[in-house]
Amino acid sequence: MNKNTILTLDEIHNLAMQVLSTHGFSTAQADSIAKTVTAAERDGCRSHGLFRIPFYVDALKNPSANAQAEPILSVTDSSVVHVDALRGFCPLALRTGLPALSEKARLHGTAALAIHNTYNIAALWPEVESLAVQGLVAFAFTTANAYVAPAGGQSPLYGTNPMAFAFPRKDQPPLVFDQASSASARGEIQLHLREGKLLPDGWAIDREGNPTNDPQAALDGAQLPFGGYKGAALALMVELLAGALIGDNFSVESTEQDAYGVGAPLGGELLLAIDPAHFGSGNYLERSEYLFEQVLAQPGTRLPSQRRYDTRREHETHGVDIDNVLLAELREFLD
Amino acid sequence: MNKNTILTLDEIHNLAMQVLSTHGFSTAQADSIAKTVTAAERDGCRSHGLFRIPFYVDALKNPSANAQAEPILSVTDSSVVHVDALRGFCPLALRTGLPALSEKARLHGTAALAIHNTYNIAALWPEVESLAVQGLVAFAFTTANAYVAPAGGQSPLYGTNPMAFAFPRKDQPPLVFDQASSASARGEIQLHLREGKLLPDGWAIDREGNPTNDPQAALDGAQLPFGGYKGAALALMVELLAGALIGDNFSVESTEQDAYGVGAPLGGELLLAIDPAHFGSGNYLERSEYLFEQVLAQPGTRLPSQRRYDTRREHETHGVDIDNVLLAELREFLD
Repeated sequence: MNKNTILTLDEIHNLAMQVLSTHGFSTAQADSIAKTVTAAERDGCRSHGLFRIPFYVDALKNPSANAQAEPILSVTDSSVVHVDALRGFCPLALRTGLPALSEKARLHGTAALAIHNTYNIAALWPEVESLAVQGLVAFAFTTANAYVAPAGGQSPLYGTNPMAFAFPRKDQPPLVFDQASSASARGEIQLHLREGKLLPDGWAIDREGNPTNDPQAALDGAQLPFGGYKGAALALMVELLAGALIGDNFSVESTEQDAYGVGAPLGGELLLAIDPAHFGSGNYLERSEYLFEQVLAQPGTRLPSQRRYDTRREHETHGVDIDNVLLAELREFLD
Repeated sequence: MNKNTILTLDEIHNLAMQVLSTHGFSTAQADSIAKTVTAAERDGCRSHGLFRIPFYVDALKNPSANAQAEPILSVTDSSVVHVDALRGFCPLALRTGLPALSEKARLHGTAALAIHNTYNIAALWPEVESLAVQGLVAFAFTTANAYVAPAGGQSPLYGTNPMAFAFPRKDQPPLVFDQASSASARGEIQLHLREGKLLPDGWAIDREGNPTNDPQAALDGAQLPFGGYKGAALALMVELLAGALIGDNFSVESTEQDAYGVGAPLGGELLLAIDPAHFGSGNYLERSEYLFEQVLAQPGTRLPSQRRYDTRREHETHGVDIDNVLLAELREFLD
């Protein structure tokens, strides 16, 4: 018996739509989530692919989550655009706000989009990539669940708090990175637990604040930021930008409010976009290629997002191997 | 005989002014550099204090450096402001551009300042702090000399590429960090060499790309980014923002152009400023204090910049201990 089934990207999208629609998501919410999930499978990011669909459904156990929300866009003369997600999910809020963000960035040179009041369990690279495909430089920041200890501390306070960045490229998909400010993803620790493996040094501390290699002790304790105090400073920056500045939850508040333990944090996301046309460097695309060539001239290097784009080409042509256990689980969600 | 002499902040500023003026810096260039150097001594950042003055003087060995430059500010309807430093030093270019950046941020909500064509050997925290003192959230990015290998690579390509961030605080100096994307400052490796100490793991590789703890092999080889590939991604981001986007040198180009080996890189700096007033969260200052309290409630933690502000209070009251060897060296510069 095969362990996997090959699905086309359309089949992945349709399956996600079916499950979400069956569980009460509006067509717009379901479609935007399904597109995000499909993009993740396309690029080989399994943990944000179909695997994530049950988490979206579970999030509805929290009665405040709104699977029918129609996000509200607010645009003024300012270069700051707001979207109130009305406790719906982030992909539709982004779809609602990104065109206005692009427009403001082109008009003023720099612009920001604040997404408020959203359940966000997706990666950040799709939105920064989509902005850079349009020729903009983009940043995104979001809080998460409180799993990470501050530098020198003992207890979870910060989220894994990703920061994503994208820079346009000439005749190629953009340069993109999307990286947690924690040393590892939470899912990697859970995977070590399941496989009975010890954690690498530097990933986590136990409840007493001592370094641990035991995955269960790590899950009961706290994750560590990457790169020590410098990663912790980035985690704090993300809390300030996507929490305090835009008036949304800190990670620790999202976790406190998750009374149903479904793991979908309610909070905000901040995006910044920059239009290179306002900087007067006519050859910035050629200039960045020159730098990338120098990176790649060194053996053993690759550019951020390069592996994802390689997988994308492969999956667009040949479809994606989906685990049959996951498929069976998703089909149960259709009953 | 005393090893140190206590100088007031005014005395430090005056000494810096004297040396710089003697060596041909215009009053405006000298004053802006002296203020930056004095702020560093005030805050206990010795490596950017009077210690740095000989580097400014040495930079003039490069005939293209302009100690009399009067930076040119360009402001349009865009939220992007430009300053051409005309191959002068960064502190005066910042003084020229920061007021316009603040004004644009207040008007539009977000704004950028691109400093072009400048020799920059100062830290970035003074400029982001000054913006946050005015109530703005601020970022700064600059390239440097090419000392850092890309992730997986063997040879120097990126600068130590600092990124600085500041967030306003209520009735207190701002939350500020200014951190290199390298695992250590170059000066720390030089200090280990002088003191005959081995380097910690993870700081550097030798010429062959192998990990090394030997400071000389590290200086001949390449420094490593902090936190592995994540720090490398930040270093690359800084090259793209302060190099390609604004049309200035990459670190590797600054180093190639440093024919006189004086170590002052010619390049650009990008600043971003955000006005919280455009985000509609009336209580962001109270909200961030709430988060800071939670950080500090954990034993062993402190906030970024906290130690610097503690030193500042101490030095403003009691003056700064300056090494007599350094003072003698500076006085020789006056002959």
